Amino acid sequence: MRSPQSLRNGGDNTPSPLPRIPHHFHSTLSVQKLRRFNSLILVFRLAAFCFSLASSVFMLTNSRGSDSPRWYDFDAFRFVFAANAIVAIYSLFEMGVSVWEISKGTTFFPEILQVWFDFGHDQAFAYLVLSADAAGTALARTLRESDTCTATNAFCVQSYISVALGFAAFLFLGLSSLLSGFRVVCFIINGSRFHL
Amino acid sequence: MRSPQSLRNGGDNTPSPLPRIPHHFHSTLSVQKLRRFNSLILVFRLAAFCFSLASSVFMLTNSRGSDSPRWYDFDAFRFVFAANAIVAIYSLFEMGVSVWEISKGTTFFPEILQVWFDFGHDQAFAYLVLSADAAGTALARTLRESDTCTATNAFCVQSYISVALGFAAFLFLGLSSLLSGFRVVCFIINGSRFHL
Repeated sequence: MRSPQSLRNGGDNTPSPLPRIPHHFHSTLSVQKLRRFNSLILVFRLAAFCFSLASSVFMLTNSRGSDSPRWYDFDAFRFVFAANAIVAIYSLFEMGVSVWEISKGTTFFPEILQVWFDFGHDQAFAYLVLSADAAGTALARTLRESDTCTATNAFCVQSYISVALGFAAFLFLGLSSLLSGFRVVCFIINGSRFHL
Repeated sequence: MRSPQSLRNGGDNTPSPLPRIPHHFHSTLSVQKLRRFNSLILVFRLAAFCFSLASSVFMLTNSRGSDSPRWYDFDAFRFVFAANAIVAIYSLFEMGVSVWEISKGTTFFPEILQVWFDFGHDQAFAYLVLSADAAGTALARTLRESDTCTATNAFCVQSYISVALGFAAFLFLGLSSLLSGFRVVCFIINGSRFHL
C-alpha cells in the first residue's frame, strides 16, 4: 500500500500546521478510512444515477400515439427530462471517478480541482434537479385538475412516477453534496483530502 | 475595542494548532475584516428580505373580486407565498443577528451554534424558495396557455412579478449561504469565526 504522501497528486500549496505523523501510521488508518468514505460516496452516486436515469427514461417514453398528450408538449416535463438526464450523465462520470480513486488511490483530476469540481457540481445539479422536479410537480398537479388526466390517465401516472424518481435522485445527490462538502473542508484544513 | 479572545462566546472546544498571535495585532486587523465581512452578509440579508417580502406581498394581493381567479386557488402560488414569507421572516431575524454582532462584537447564539444555524438554514431555505419559484413558474406558464390569462391578464402579470422577485430572493439567499459556509469552514479551521 502506498503512503498518503505519494497518493496526493498536485495542488498541495497549503502548509499543514500539524507536525507530520509517521507514514506507516497515517497510511494504515487514514487510507482505510478514505476508502470507506469513497465507497459511501460511490453508493450515493450509484443511487443518484439509477434514480435520475429511471426518471428520464420514464419521461422519455411517456407518449402514447397521436391522440394522447406528449411529454415534450409541456415545458416543465422537458425540464424534468433534461435535468435528470444531465444528472444521470454527471453521476455516471462521478462513479467512474470514484472507482478510479478507490482502485488507483489517486484522484482523477489534480486533488484541489477534484474536490472543488465535485462539490460545485453537486450543489449546482442538486439545485437544478430540485427546481425541475418542483416545476414538474406543479404541472402534474395542474394537469390532474384539467381534462387531460381524465382522458388519458396513464400519461399522468407515468409523469408522477418520473417526477417522484427525480426527487429520489435529488435526495442522493444532496447526500453526495454533503460528503463532497466535507472533503472540501478536509482539503482546506489539511491540504489533502485525507480527514485525519 | 475588545480583543478577539473576549469577543468569542462559548463553544470554543477545538484547540487552535497555530501559536497565539499577540492581541493588539489580531484585534486591529481581524476585527476590522470581520466587521466588513459581517456588513457584506447584512447587505445580502437585507436584499433577500426585501425581495422575498415584495414577492409574498405581490402574491398575497393577487386577487381581484369574485369573478377573477384568486391566488390561493392554486397550490403552487400558495407554495410561492409561504416559502417567500418564511424566507422574509428568517432574513429579518438574521438581519437582527447581524446588527447585534456588528454592534456588540459577539454572536447572538453561542458561536458554534450560530455558524451552523446560519449555514444550515441558508441552505435549506434556498432549496425551499427555489423549488417554490420553480413550481410557480411552471404553473404561470401553464396558465398563460389556458383561458385564465386571456380573461384576466393582470392576475397573470402579477404572478410573474411575484415569482421573479422570489428568484431574486433566492439569489441573495444563495450568496448569504456561500458566506455563511465560509464562516463554518473558518470556524472548523480556527475554532473561531475570525478568518485570519
